[in-house]
Amino acid sequence: MKYYKIPFCLVFLFLTITCRAQSENLHSFRVVPLGVEGGLNESNLSSYMLAAAGTDAFIGLDAGTLFSGLKIAVNKGVFRQPLTEVLRKKIKGYLISHPHLDHVAGLVINSPDDSNKNIYALPFCLKVLEEKYFTWESWANFGDKGEAPQLKKYHYIDLEENKETALEGTKMFVQPFLLSHSSPGLSTAFLIRHDSTYLLYLGDTGADSIERSDHLKQLWKHITPLIIDKKLKAIFIEVSFPRSQPDNQLFGHLTPDLLMQEMQTLSSLCGTSSLKGLPVVITHIKPAGNNEQQIKKELRETNKLQLKIIFPKQGVPLNF
Amino acid sequence: MKYYKIPFCLVFLFLTITCRAQSENLHSFRVVPLGVEGGLNESNLSSYMLAAAGTDAFIGLDAGTLFSGLKIAVNKGVFRQPLTEVLRKKIKGYLISHPHLDHVAGLVINSPDDSNKNIYALPFCLKVLEEKYFTWESWANFGDKGEAPQLKKYHYIDLEENKETALEGTKMFVQPFLLSHSSPGLSTAFLIRHDSTYLLYLGDTGADSIERSDHLKQLWKHITPLIIDKKLKAIFIEVSFPRSQPDNQLFGHLTPDLLMQEMQTLSSLCGTSSLKGLPVVITHIKPAGNNEQQIKKELRETNKLQLKIIFPKQGVPLNF
Repeated sequence: MKYYKIPFCLVFLFLTITCRAQSENLHSFRVVPLGVEGGLNESNLSSYMLAAAGTDAFIGLDAGTLFSGLKIAVNKGVFRQPLTEVLRKKIKGYLISHPHLDHVAGLVINSPDDSNKNIYALPFCLKVLEEKYFTWESWANFGDKGEAPQLKKYHYIDLEENKETALEGTKMFVQPFLLSHSSPGLSTAFLIRHDSTYLLYLGDTGADSIERSDHLKQLWKHITPLIIDKKLKAIFIEVSFPRSQPDNQLFGHLTPDLLMQEMQTLSSLCGTSSLKGLPVVITHIKPAGNNEQQIKKELRETNKLQLKIIFPKQGVPLNF
Repeated sequence: MKYYKIPFCLVFLFLTITCRAQSENLHSFRVVPLGVEGGLNESNLSSYMLAAAGTDAFIGLDAGTLFSGLKIAVNKGVFRQPLTEVLRKKIKGYLISHPHLDHVAGLVINSPDDSNKNIYALPFCLKVLEEKYFTWESWANFGDKGEAPQLKKYHYIDLEENKETALEGTKMFVQPFLLSHSSPGLSTAFLIRHDSTYLLYLGDTGADSIERSDHLKQLWKHITPLIIDKKLKAIFIEVSFPRSQPDNQLFGHLTPDLLMQEMQTLSSLCGTSSLKGLPVVITHIKPAGNNEQQIKKELRETNKLQLKIIFPKQGVPLNF
């Protein structure tokens, strides 16, 4: 038996390398969730690291929690570097969907130890970062606009609605779309491109029917050809409350029924069975009572389109 | 042996009740730390629940982290109620030392699930809560001042420097003193009274020598008679950095040496050996590198006054 040991090892190594290479070829994006819940729990607020597959250059999709999520990811062995090095070197910039504190607290609180980088957002959002958070009374001005002195650690980049912008230091590009979040409140969806593949991340959003808006409809129209051509790899979208939440207490958020209503609109644009198996990552579940179990149950019950529903976990990577 | 079982049980019960009653008589205050570190880690930012001993009516001394700290305290059995009930019913109000995000993030993020209560602070601090955090662009206005509509969940109470104010719903009173925190930045020390006993909590502060201020000297003068009369039960004070931190990068914080310099000033006001055994709770250690070990080592080495140095832990109650 001894003589077979070395050849077996080599075969195993060869298979491992081949499988890994194939898997990396198959995937377009890698996501490391740093925070997945909708409010309240300071250690687990909306924050997703996103990189083009095969690269180590991430962008932060929102930054509600950084440190606590990175700690979990490092402890799980997702990154081999110390937490601060991952923060400083692997996150190349931030895309902020809207300026509610549960989407930016981690960014502000970790700014003293962060490295110089870009913050990309629509103007309505950067304005609040500049005027409310990165000010000398509430924190320190780490931005390159607003109150003097500006520490200029962060370079604000105004995105333009529907226009693609390169994400510096990564192989990705972003195209932002306006969302309605408790009208007149605004939020943003980011369509991220890597080569000819896409991932769609939506910040907090209400349903068009509740918000009296057509922002989601316009977004669904835009991504229809990407779905038909199988270029869209995943949608990250919020479901904050179970169906029992009254319409007048949604505060610009979705329930399972409202999500499925929107997915039905998308499906009718794309054609029958077009959404079958599409990865839909559910973000922003509010951690109260048995919300989580209830929302999961309701999504299972209403998933007639056979979406591939995914519930992200802090520090557990997702590949698309 | 069987015949002795009941009497033994009764003796044990009697002793337990007696000891507990004596311990409650001996103590004046109960503190449940919800967050103890200085920045970066969103799940462990400055936040201390404080009650008069023998009562269940707490005030929040700063509120950098609420949910994550309450979760630990509830898991440890410190409270028997669910987390939300502790938040809503046991915390009667908040005392905010200064409006930097690492001292208020938990309050803002948990406000949707909180109950109606008072927020007490000096006017410079409430102004920032009103103008920066509880606004409709950065969150929602849960306050009773500032942008319309005001949801009026929180009633802002302007404290007056050096003047005592009752803390509603508790058996405690507060007297605030101005501190210098990276001049011209301000912060506050709260002297809390329960009957004729006191506890002193300082928000972030620089040393007088670095800040070119006499705020700490004035505070030490004020508490001198309380120390001489053994009425001051504990001091909560920050040590953010080890001694290796250069003076020009202290950003309004203390090192072990600077703390001991200040304690020396206090000691010279109170008389030899007056501080021996005084509980000094070290807050706000910045969680970077081996800061914590280094600061603990340096405090041990420099503790010539024989202070009773205490390092608080999340969810582990302290009695004074």
